[in-house]
Amino acid sequence: MKINYTSYTAHCKKIADIGHSIALLHWDQEVYMPKGGAAFRAGQIATLSGIAHELSTAESFGELLNNLKDSIDLASAQLRNIELSLEAYNKSKKLNTEFVIEGAKLQSAAFQAWIMARENNDYNIFLPALEKFVVYKKREAEIRTYQRHPYDALLDLYEKGASVGQLDPVFDDIKKQLVGFIAKIGKAKQVDFSFLKGDFDKDIQWKFGLKLLKKMGYDFNYGRQDISEHPFTISFSPQDVRVTTRIDEKDFQNMTWSCIHEGGHALYEQGLKPEQYGTPLGAAISLGIHESQSRLWENNVGRSLSYWKANYSDLQEVFPKQFKGIDLPIFYKAINKIEAGFIRTEADELNYHLHVLIRYELEKSIMSGELQVKDLRAAWNEKYYDYFNLKVPDDKHGILQDIHWAHGSFGYFPTYSMGSIYAAQFYAQAKKDIKDLEKQIENGNYKILLDWLRINIHQHGQMYTADELCRRITGEGISFTSFMKYAREKFGEIYNLRN
Amino acid sequence: MKINYTSYTAHCKKIADIGHSIALLHWDQEVYMPKGGAAFRAGQIATLSGIAHELSTAESFGELLNNLKDSIDLASAQLRNIELSLEAYNKSKKLNTEFVIEGAKLQSAAFQAWIMARENNDYNIFLPALEKFVVYKKREAEIRTYQRHPYDALLDLYEKGASVGQLDPVFDDIKKQLVGFIAKIGKAKQVDFSFLKGDFDKDIQWKFGLKLLKKMGYDFNYGRQDISEHPFTISFSPQDVRVTTRIDEKDFQNMTWSCIHEGGHALYEQGLKPEQYGTPLGAAISLGIHESQSRLWENNVGRSLSYWKANYSDLQEVFPKQFKGIDLPIFYKAINKIEAGFIRTEADELNYHLHVLIRYELEKSIMSGELQVKDLRAAWNEKYYDYFNLKVPDDKHGILQDIHWAHGSFGYFPTYSMGSIYAAQFYAQAKKDIKDLEKQIENGNYKILLDWLRINIHQHGQMYTADELCRRITGEGISFTSFMKYAREKFGEIYNLRN
Repeated sequence: MKINYTSYTAHCKKIADIGHSIALLHWDQEVYMPKGGAAFRAGQIATLSGIAHELSTAESFGELLNNLKDSIDLASAQLRNIELSLEAYNKSKKLNTEFVIEGAKLQSAAFQAWIMARENNDYNIFLPALEKFVVYKKREAEIRTYQRHPYDALLDLYEKGASVGQLDPVFDDIKKQLVGFIAKIGKAKQVDFSFLKGDFDKDIQWKFGLKLLKKMGYDFNYGRQDISEHPFTISFSPQDVRVTTRIDEKDFQNMTWSCIHEGGHALYEQGLKPEQYGTPLGAAISLGIHESQSRLWENNVGRSLSYWKANYSDLQEVFPKQFKGIDLPIFYKAINKIEAGFIRTEADELNYHLHVLIRYELEKSIMSGELQVKDLRAAWNEKYYDYFNLKVPDDKHGILQDIHWAHGSFGYFPTYSMGSIYAAQFYAQAKKDIKDLEKQIENGNYKILLDWLRINIHQHGQMYTADELCRRITGEGISFTSFMKYAREKFGEIYNLRN
Repeated sequence: MKINYTSYTAHCKKIADIGHSIALLHWDQEVYMPKGGAAFRAGQIATLSGIAHELSTAESFGELLNNLKDSIDLASAQLRNIELSLEAYNKSKKLNTEFVIEGAKLQSAAFQAWIMARENNDYNIFLPALEKFVVYKKREAEIRTYQRHPYDALLDLYEKGASVGQLDPVFDDIKKQLVGFIAKIGKAKQVDFSFLKGDFDKDIQWKFGLKLLKKMGYDFNYGRQDISEHPFTISFSPQDVRVTTRIDEKDFQNMTWSCIHEGGHALYEQGLKPEQYGTPLGAAISLGIHESQSRLWENNVGRSLSYWKANYSDLQEVFPKQFKGIDLPIFYKAINKIEAGFIRTEADELNYHLHVLIRYELEKSIMSGELQVKDLRAAWNEKYYDYFNLKVPDDKHGILQDIHWAHGSFGYFPTYSMGSIYAAQFYAQAKKDIKDLEKQIENGNYKILLDWLRINIHQHGQMYTADELCRRITGEGISFTSFMKYAREKFGEIYNLRN
């Protein structure tokens, strides 16, 4: 039986080796590849993806997993691996090859149409391809099966176990509690943030970002940072986890928060167990939990007053022209400015949830059939008016802003909000568990927090589901309460609100 | 039958996709990978190599090739591909998996021993591992079979068709003609080259190198340059061919000639037909022909007076302190200084052949059994005394300088000399075919030369063997005559010798 478990880990390692090679092909494409290399690179990624898929769905692998799943000789961690691998195996066997190829073709067509539609700032160009893709996604939901709502089948792809049943109350709370709170902030005396824009030398920004990453505990012996158009984190093993950033010479914020955000993702990946490489216990739980790590560092830590007590003098030193005359409290308020806008990726940490809420509601209605794709733009614009009191000026600032639907990633958006909500829950608990956490952060010491994350989250891989993990750590499942408490305290003070 | 040929190219493409992914894993390792990533990276390379090997030796692939090899429906280029793929297939089937694994283990042990031996500057530490490895290589030669000399079986691995029968006359000529000529140069009035060393800013060197590469015709839309410890060229497709260089701030030569040398390799790879990606007709012929391209650019072009007539003023401009007071003829002589030394990789273009000659003679004797591995150091030092009149001071400057034997690459060294000899033959022919070639080069125009190389060499891939190609272009097989003529003319003038 031991030999069988070894066969299992060897097979997992093989699939992981191919998967991480694909990751390197992607990383290189985003970071260093000459433009002309694109065509052959696409073919190389497709070939390796095909091989990985074959190995993941091999009948012999299924037999091995079924043989092992009731083994009495295995430790519970081993059994958990088998259980999760079998679950993933059965899921991937549900879709046959023709269906997968059809999806890839629809994706390619939708992506091209989306590009074209953006260039012409016209949703109608995207519409026919999106309609076909939605029909396909509905079929996919049926094939994958679901308990209550077809959207559940897709949510589960990005956040295992997530469902309309779980998320409706959460987004209800967002709507009930956050919309009013943001309106209250809108009526308060606004903060000055004009000094955040100016001239910020590229090299100085780069060095400042590296320093922040190092201080967080990101280990450059097992990682590196590069420049790319869109910042991302990518892992080739827990011993080679890379981040990218972008630098805007007119605005230091872009680089700063992308460094801290991606650093949060990277610390999670660097904290996975190397000896579990390739198995579920060596992998992150879900997109939501992953995002909780990036958001916790970016917002709960990186946008806190305590954080900048330790780092603001450094920033003043490297950009004296910009910040020498600005006191810390003013700076702190500026970086936490709350302001409604059209674009999700540029939103502050409160308005962000409303952007996600809109997408959640639209995706749910599309999947249930209540809303038709042809009516999606009107519904989009209506919701932006309802929630933000904003009239969407054109499709680029509206329905065409995100790539997700062109990728067929229905069900992805909610994980962004879930991450931020989990982050608030985890951070509230960390504050309880670590008495002097604020003090440590004021002194620029993040080790105690990183250790807490390592012990409570990173090291476990997929030993627990997202929900189980959250309950183990905080005693309850996902809940908007912690986030709202955090928001009221932080922004109540910044905007001088009475509760 | 057409469908079969398509199956063939699809299979080739699959193998190539994996091979080029492995290449990217290697490139990244040399250029950007954080040190800590090494262990998992080795595993990833091994996994992909295993898959590529399985596909290359699949029975079904052999059947396909055997079905296609006598097809009357195929064009001659297609038949040539099948013929070459079948040849490669049969070769790779000769060694069974156990034997290959044994070799990998011996290589790993020999490499470790070589590292240790170098650290301690003592060949005896390397000896036991090398002895075992040589026993293995002799067995390998027997398995691979050969006509006359066991060394032939290994030479063929790096330069298909190369043999002792072909190379003995060439190295005889090197010995007879070059040793005396170098001695004559040694007695002549020596050139001043002291001004070549100094302070050369890194960034300025980097930009100068990029400019040289661009002028050669290296296309940065389909390539890029990075820094690595040892310069190399690597291809991920004819549309993504990368070079690396290194920069020595005390000596601009290191960067300059590595750029031109690797640029020559890269132009070959960029000149292969994209539509033949993965097939033999889309691949370089041999190491010798590859090296002919790098050497032709590095030495015949890059170390010529004509080349520097076009480029010296640029060099003077970027490094005025160093070169403003030095006239071109003095500079030209300095960069062509002939001087015996212990280290192959630092040798000038004449002495280089003697370093290779020594290794050729030693490898031949080892493979025939005339020389024992335990006596290799003594034999090495004796030959350095005979050919260079130099007493090897220690093993680092002697038998431990090259990594090749630790890699088991017996038979590799001769391709370096072959490249240089082919280069002289090709360049002599190019001068005949292009009446104003010198003039063009004096004006910094290399397009006419690159076109000539594209038409005569690059585009063919493996359509012809190295020997056939050489005969097609020059009317004769490999011969030292052209090189010696080139050497006599060039260095006769530099050292003011009477012939």
